[in-house]
Amino acid sequence: MSDTIERLLPPATEVGRVLTDAETLAPFEQDWNKRFIGNARCVVQPESTAQVAALLRWCNANQVPVIPQGGNTNMTGAATPDDSGAAVILSLSRMNQVRLVDAIGNTVTVDAGVVLETLQQVAHDAGRLFPLALGAQGTCQIGGNLSTNAGGTGVLRYGNTRELCLGLEVVTPSGEVLDDLRGLRKDNTGYDLRDLYIGAEGTLGVITGATLKLYPQPVARVTAWAALASPDHALRLLGLAQQMLGASLTAFELMSQYCVQLVEAKFGDTPKVFNEAHPWHVLLESSDLESEAHAVERFEALMGAALEQDIVRDAAIAQSIAQTKQFWLIRERVALSQPKNIKHDISLPIARIGAFVEETGRAITGRFAGTRMTILGHMGDGNLHYNVEPPAGLSDMEFLKLEKDVHRFVYDAVDAARGSMSAEHGIGRAKVADLEHYKSPTALGLMRAIKSALDPNGIMNPGKVLANR
Amino acid sequence: MSDTIERLLPPATEVGRVLTDAETLAPFEQDWNKRFIGNARCVVQPESTAQVAALLRWCNANQVPVIPQGGNTNMTGAATPDDSGAAVILSLSRMNQVRLVDAIGNTVTVDAGVVLETLQQVAHDAGRLFPLALGAQGTCQIGGNLSTNAGGTGVLRYGNTRELCLGLEVVTPSGEVLDDLRGLRKDNTGYDLRDLYIGAEGTLGVITGATLKLYPQPVARVTAWAALASPDHALRLLGLAQQMLGASLTAFELMSQYCVQLVEAKFGDTPKVFNEAHPWHVLLESSDLESEAHAVERFEALMGAALEQDIVRDAAIAQSIAQTKQFWLIRERVALSQPKNIKHDISLPIARIGAFVEETGRAITGRFAGTRMTILGHMGDGNLHYNVEPPAGLSDMEFLKLEKDVHRFVYDAVDAARGSMSAEHGIGRAKVADLEHYKSPTALGLMRAIKSALDPNGIMNPGKVLANR
Repeated sequence: MSDTIERLLPPATEVGRVLTDAETLAPFEQDWNKRFIGNARCVVQPESTAQVAALLRWCNANQVPVIPQGGNTNMTGAATPDDSGAAVILSLSRMNQVRLVDAIGNTVTVDAGVVLETLQQVAHDAGRLFPLALGAQGTCQIGGNLSTNAGGTGVLRYGNTRELCLGLEVVTPSGEVLDDLRGLRKDNTGYDLRDLYIGAEGTLGVITGATLKLYPQPVARVTAWAALASPDHALRLLGLAQQMLGASLTAFELMSQYCVQLVEAKFGDTPKVFNEAHPWHVLLESSDLESEAHAVERFEALMGAALEQDIVRDAAIAQSIAQTKQFWLIRERVALSQPKNIKHDISLPIARIGAFVEETGRAITGRFAGTRMTILGHMGDGNLHYNVEPPAGLSDMEFLKLEKDVHRFVYDAVDAARGSMSAEHGIGRAKVADLEHYKSPTALGLMRAIKSALDPNGIMNPGKVLANR
Repeated sequence: MSDTIERLLPPATEVGRVLTDAETLAPFEQDWNKRFIGNARCVVQPESTAQVAALLRWCNANQVPVIPQGGNTNMTGAATPDDSGAAVILSLSRMNQVRLVDAIGNTVTVDAGVVLETLQQVAHDAGRLFPLALGAQGTCQIGGNLSTNAGGTGVLRYGNTRELCLGLEVVTPSGEVLDDLRGLRKDNTGYDLRDLYIGAEGTLGVITGATLKLYPQPVARVTAWAALASPDHALRLLGLAQQMLGASLTAFELMSQYCVQLVEAKFGDTPKVFNEAHPWHVLLESSDLESEAHAVERFEALMGAALEQDIVRDAAIAQSIAQTKQFWLIRERVALSQPKNIKHDISLPIARIGAFVEETGRAITGRFAGTRMTILGHMGDGNLHYNVEPPAGLSDMEFLKLEKDVHRFVYDAVDAARGSMSAEHGIGRAKVADLEHYKSPTALGLMRAIKSALDPNGIMNPGKVLANR
């Protein structure tokens, strides 16, 4: 990394703080789980949109790559540099101001560097709900959530991050500022630029601010737990729950029995919901605007109907806030209880989930001896975290080899079922080759045309989403 | 038009039906309210995506402009040709097949030419709701709704057409077919091409199919009517209704007293909701998944709280399906009762509506003597149909002159309030110059870059949204 120090640096007077010390740079040059490690020219931490614009003008003039980085919790290496040391990492962390809370219009306007949990709290303090919620919320920043169109546990009711955004402030590669922060619910004046930047993973420009939707705070949140025979039973429960609870149904999380076993093995204090073991489980959450009693009553009606129709094998409705939290705790601990495994963030047409799980599971264990599945899903969104645990005792090399083969095997099955090989984590560096393989040439051609049109010098996060040419 | 007959025509064997007879062409060459009339080379009516692709290849090779046309109910001349007779009108009417109804996944996949009302019916027959609803639903086609990102009365709960779409099939100007009809709820594999075509008014490609979201059918729909002192009171009622009814609140339509007067004058059989006159009115609709009794009970709780807090002057809750229909009838008749006036389809940050109505109303009547306002709004979306009635006895020429001045005056006020001069009707031909005036140079520059990248020969609906260069 010593040679990077000799490189040309952007002027701190115009772009804000410029960091070059190797030790300081190190945490920015690798992702949080150390799968992607590279070298950067420097880290720049602007404090204003004007400083971001100045940086991009400088980078564009000098053909220097820029890698926008938020909380650095990305799952696909979208925010880490390559080995060359050529790139500037643009850290948005110091752009962390809440610009405006409009409790009447139900909007909040923030800098991109505001941490998700802070944003949730700001909404809460205004008597409102900002519904995006995910594991990394204490660290991830809203700019990163927007750039990756993050999902999480509230998507069933409130949509992905895309659906929560009313407008963006974006700095283009040439340093122009697109100000689309009016916060309007309806605005049909020209092409939808907002949605082009959302999910583009920083390859078209830098999101520096956003106006987001707020919602009424629910009066009560109540969870229920259902034990089921199969994912197809879970699908029937989902349909019934949507019909009876409508928009009050805010989570519907599927878990295989093995997930529950893993949690119980890892965390001895995990309470058992049912004494008996069941093949599949669903955690449901209702967010009620009337009362806790109303939420419980609706859950009772739902579970009564589900038991009667033989959809569920057993059901429990949380009787207290403490029990509601306990149910969520089991779900959250699944991520922390898994051994090293081969991870897939896939989505499927919802009606095909049952057949996919059965057929693909059988095919994988047939083809790759000794593997077993950890299946965890945001079922209402068709999104499965479909993780394949290798047989015990593999070396790192053997694991990597198996990982490659299993990925291709699973993605082929997903593609055949007309699903997606990246539901909520995006493409980043990790899946560029997979995207080239599975996405249609027409879609890739359109994406490349857009990339060339909006970033003609190719300075924005090169090699992410689309391969360098 | 005689000279158009001599022009080169696309081969019917490849593109489907080709119409050239002047009389047959006439209804396609003008919009429904005859504000935009032009000449076309021919009308082509393909029956398949392959025929649309063949047509676009032919047009692209021959540099012939293409104007996609659905039900021809556009409000801004987006689907009518200019005078030159150069363009092909691509009528999607014969592409009207429902491809797939997935009641489990809650999706429907259709050809672009399916009429909105047919789509609503197909959903209904499957026990589901397709929530897009607007005045032209018996004629407009879903492809047109998507191309203009249509709004309507259900936006408050279900969003604009954009929010109802999971994926598109699009034919590009070079005749490639983008197939994005997997109907996934989560799919973060590259740039959001779907939302670029939605609302692009046929200037980037032709939407030939779509996969759309379905919702549970409500068990009961109940309306209520509130009389209020001002739009600011309506705003407070909206906040209370959103807190108490949440997603059950499916409509919140604001009307000035003058709207009600116009309806009563035009339709003698219109029932009076209240005997007393009140300055402002709101029609509320609740779509309940429990029961009619539950909907009525929630409305009673809402109106009780609103009366107690002095938010409403009077309130009525429909006691029967007949009365629910009557309340809607009053609202629907407003559009039919207005004299010729100067129309604006604007949106505003919701919190600013009250001040805008008061200040702009005063300014307009001060500046343009003898005018009066008809104000009708989808208030929850910040969307006002803000119509200025000229003094009686103007000639057509005087009307047009006044129209131009009033448009500029209103749009200046909207822009100052950080609103939009086209909330749900789009730009078409009518507002191209306004867009150039009010949209930022950065946004226009990005739009032009995208247009050039995706339609390099400029054959797609030229002169709409963006000016011909």
